[in-house]
Amino acid sequence: MFTFDTSPERYRHWRLDVAGRIATLVLDVDEEGGLKPGYKLKLNSYDLGVDIELNDALNRIRFEHPQVACVVLTSGKARMFCSGANIYMLGTSSHAWKVNFCKFTNETRNGMEDSSRHSGLKFLAALNGATAGGGYEVALACDEIVMVDDRSTTVSLPEVPLLGVLPGTGGLTRLTDKRKVRRDLADVFCTTAEGVRADRARAWNLVDHTAPPARFAEVVQARAEALAEHSIRPAEATGVALPPLARTIHDGGLTYPHVDVAIDASGRLATLTVKGPAADEAADLQAIVARGADWWPLAMARELDDAILMLRLNHGDIGTLVLETEGDASAVLAQDAALHAHADHWFVRETVGLLRRTLARLDVSSRSLIALARPTSCFAGLLAELLFAADRSYMAQSLEGANAGATLALSPSSFGPFPMVNGLTRLANRFCERPEPVAQAQAAIGRTLGPEEALGLGLVTFAPDELDWEDEVRLALEERASLSPDALTAMEANLRFAGAETMETRIFGRLSAWQNWVFQRPNAVGDKGALKVYGSGAKAHFDWERV
Amino acid sequence: MFTFDTSPERYRHWRLDVAGRIATLVLDVDEEGGLKPGYKLKLNSYDLGVDIELNDALNRIRFEHPQVACVVLTSGKARMFCSGANIYMLGTSSHAWKVNFCKFTNETRNGMEDSSRHSGLKFLAALNGATAGGGYEVALACDEIVMVDDRSTTVSLPEVPLLGVLPGTGGLTRLTDKRKVRRDLADVFCTTAEGVRADRARAWNLVDHTAPPARFAEVVQARAEALAEHSIRPAEATGVALPPLARTIHDGGLTYPHVDVAIDASGRLATLTVKGPAADEAADLQAIVARGADWWPLAMARELDDAILMLRLNHGDIGTLVLETEGDASAVLAQDAALHAHADHWFVRETVGLLRRTLARLDVSSRSLIALARPTSCFAGLLAELLFAADRSYMAQSLEGANAGATLALSPSSFGPFPMVNGLTRLANRFCERPEPVAQAQAAIGRTLGPEEALGLGLVTFAPDELDWEDEVRLALEERASLSPDALTAMEANLRFAGAETMETRIFGRLSAWQNWVFQRPNAVGDKGALKVYGSGAKAHFDWERV
Repeated sequence: MFTFDTSPERYRHWRLDVAGRIATLVLDVDEEGGLKPGYKLKLNSYDLGVDIELNDALNRIRFEHPQVACVVLTSGKARMFCSGANIYMLGTSSHAWKVNFCKFTNETRNGMEDSSRHSGLKFLAALNGATAGGGYEVALACDEIVMVDDRSTTVSLPEVPLLGVLPGTGGLTRLTDKRKVRRDLADVFCTTAEGVRADRARAWNLVDHTAPPARFAEVVQARAEALAEHSIRPAEATGVALPPLARTIHDGGLTYPHVDVAIDASGRLATLTVKGPAADEAADLQAIVARGADWWPLAMARELDDAILMLRLNHGDIGTLVLETEGDASAVLAQDAALHAHADHWFVRETVGLLRRTLARLDVSSRSLIALARPTSCFAGLLAELLFAADRSYMAQSLEGANAGATLALSPSSFGPFPMVNGLTRLANRFCERPEPVAQAQAAIGRTLGPEEALGLGLVTFAPDELDWEDEVRLALEERASLSPDALTAMEANLRFAGAETMETRIFGRLSAWQNWVFQRPNAVGDKGALKVYGSGAKAHFDWERV
Repeated sequence: MFTFDTSPERYRHWRLDVAGRIATLVLDVDEEGGLKPGYKLKLNSYDLGVDIELNDALNRIRFEHPQVACVVLTSGKARMFCSGANIYMLGTSSHAWKVNFCKFTNETRNGMEDSSRHSGLKFLAALNGATAGGGYEVALACDEIVMVDDRSTTVSLPEVPLLGVLPGTGGLTRLTDKRKVRRDLADVFCTTAEGVRADRARAWNLVDHTAPPARFAEVVQARAEALAEHSIRPAEATGVALPPLARTIHDGGLTYPHVDVAIDASGRLATLTVKGPAADEAADLQAIVARGADWWPLAMARELDDAILMLRLNHGDIGTLVLETEGDASAVLAQDAALHAHADHWFVRETVGLLRRTLARLDVSSRSLIALARPTSCFAGLLAELLFAADRSYMAQSLEGANAGATLALSPSSFGPFPMVNGLTRLANRFCERPEPVAQAQAAIGRTLGPEEALGLGLVTFAPDELDWEDEVRLALEERASLSPDALTAMEANLRFAGAETMETRIFGRLSAWQNWVFQRPNAVGDKGALKVYGSGAKAHFDWERV
């Protein structure tokens, strides 16, 4: 079983240096430090383990170093920034591992842009050596790119010509959508294995600045300071330490203080229960900061994020996540109100950011999501987002009346701070951007909604009564578990995102789907496929039929 | 070799009845009329041959029956509208055939919506019996859907539960994007093999109207008349007959009067040359209508459309299309001006429509597109769109000067009437929606542009001089032919469409890419995959790992 646990003193591949408003993340990959045996991480190439450290470092900068306003990503190796994802790792990994690895990598990079957009944490890529494939893709996720111009260093996306796969962790999409590189120049760039040097890279807008080696450090420092200058991150603030998660791994699943994962292996499902806060959880700013990583919204978000990642990586055969909540809705709403009241404070803003990214991670998880609202649930405020993230939802109706039983309570949390990666709130997305049902839901803020009213507002899918509940839910879960997991993954990837598209959804939708297709094709992964034979001296063998 | 040639008197599966403003297309599939041996087209199911007839019928309605303002699609079989794509055909087809079939089907359906939007030709689906899978997907492409309510007829998308594949020809996308079906209801609908009856279909907005059998014909007629009422299609007009194309198939390729396809099998490329019009081609309205199907813009569009389809279906190993033009640029510009001057006349409007759909077909063709502009070329006006459809372009520079050699000439055609399916002009898409370079190009309308100026405006990729031309072009084509065809298909599917997405691009991007992925997965197409074993009595066997 793999975990995502790490901390700076355990890093094998990154160094985190903090100096005032600027942090520097130095990539210096330990060749022998691959997450799995069978390959060496040569040439500053990366695998999932390297990305887990990057993700951890980003979260520590967000919370433990609130004064940092710009992060410089650079390399600790001579003449080599990063050569991208390790090819031998890719060549020997299962299809599912490759796809899961790419998804986590994408989420980490999207998270950098999320922090830049929402939290004023800017990123500068300092390309001090050769930059290829995923190495350039991580640079593309930064706000600016500085490249050394020593007349030999190149940037390249050699995936198509060398490996027969795509620059699939954002590369193709960010070229056109973010950097506005003309499609014919992008075509030339992506089919030129050797890449381009600094002059052409600048002319084609592949990088923002170039500098000779003697001036490189100075230009990087100046650009980092410029990016940091107008940041809303606080110049003076004490960070909040992120201690290890108090997680227990046991036969039945995972237990955290505020999240429980109960695995039903034979049913191929896991029940993920989020527990509400205590009634006396901190709600004023001073008390919130004093609680630090124990503050319920942050503690719960970290645990939920970890639970999703653990399930994805270690339990591929668990096809359905049953989403439940448990606790006191009024306590949830009190925390929800605190999040909104103190939204301008850096610690609350970063907590909202982690919640936003965690909910977004749920949205792109290739698991069926079924939410169950019971009388003991607390789908209120921000936790109602779990209900709206689900593919379908069941709300228990009591025999006492059509509007008695489980309850829901909406808050401003469903109308702004937690957009999906398509830029829509989960409710706007749920209602396919029709304004009327969204407005009706918004008018219900502050009321406790029973099953009949929730059903009428279109907030839940079904509201079986006590007599039918058990059978109806059981049948739905059994039916789900009987369907082709691939067809479900592909169906959910379409139905979950209605209408609006953004760069992020184009990466997860268009680009990732095509990459997943290529990752199945014999021309890439067959015995003589380009990805398999790379480095062996053998030539790839292609079936020339165009599909 | 398959062709797309047909005409109403040869139809085996459709009947076209025209009565005033309303045409009725009756699907009555001949079980024995499959395009390939090995399956029977039972239950009004379809294969490519059925879709070829539909595409032909739509073009005949557009041109031969200009007074038709609404097309009713219905079935000639009792209690069965259409059961979708033939499953045994899918189960026995190659991956490439399946993908190509789905693409053509998508294009035909998008073409219905294109005619509804641009030409006032509306579509009404009259579901007079069971409607499943692709049968419901064709209904989704109509402006309105009327369903018979006989308490037993259902609509369904059973692909996921029955076949382990997606409703992949627009189904999932049109549910959310067009019909605004809530994602959880769509989830229930798409996982319920037996579908839903009329009451639920109406409640979930899967159909627009329901009617009992006794009133069905009357409701259909009333809705068809209502759809026809405000159409811009002319109530009184004489149609233009579409005679068979004068195409010669020979060892070296295909020859049409205005289009030539030269196949270089060993180079895995085809050179597609569009010939400009005669200098005295009709330009005033009366003469244009008198020319009918011989009018150059229409004749050329029909031939180009056919050439693209023939290459796709019969020459899978031809990975690159070299796009060339030949003729007198001023004659092209005169025709271009005529298209704009008479844009409000139905015949010109339909010709523009066919050109728009043909260029859109090129955009989504899974072939590398390389445009070559030579001194003999006529990339002017609408033909410049071929240059901007290309993945990259080369423009010949003469030794007489940097701006001497081949020429380009822009016209309003590049700034409006021929949008890509993402809603952008090819130039706006090329420049990633940056307004300045588009405005600079627009300011160049009316000038003849040499290589230096075209390069400066970003209209071409490279401008090699006479001495380098042959080597540079040859190397580019050889290099292209050496790359993995799958990686190129996937790369081009991303780079060709920058930023903006629409329902159509979500169908070709997100939905089709996921379907193509599923079409490769053992859970669908393996020996025990759901698509393979359907109807055999055997149960599908799934690898439960979620990817």
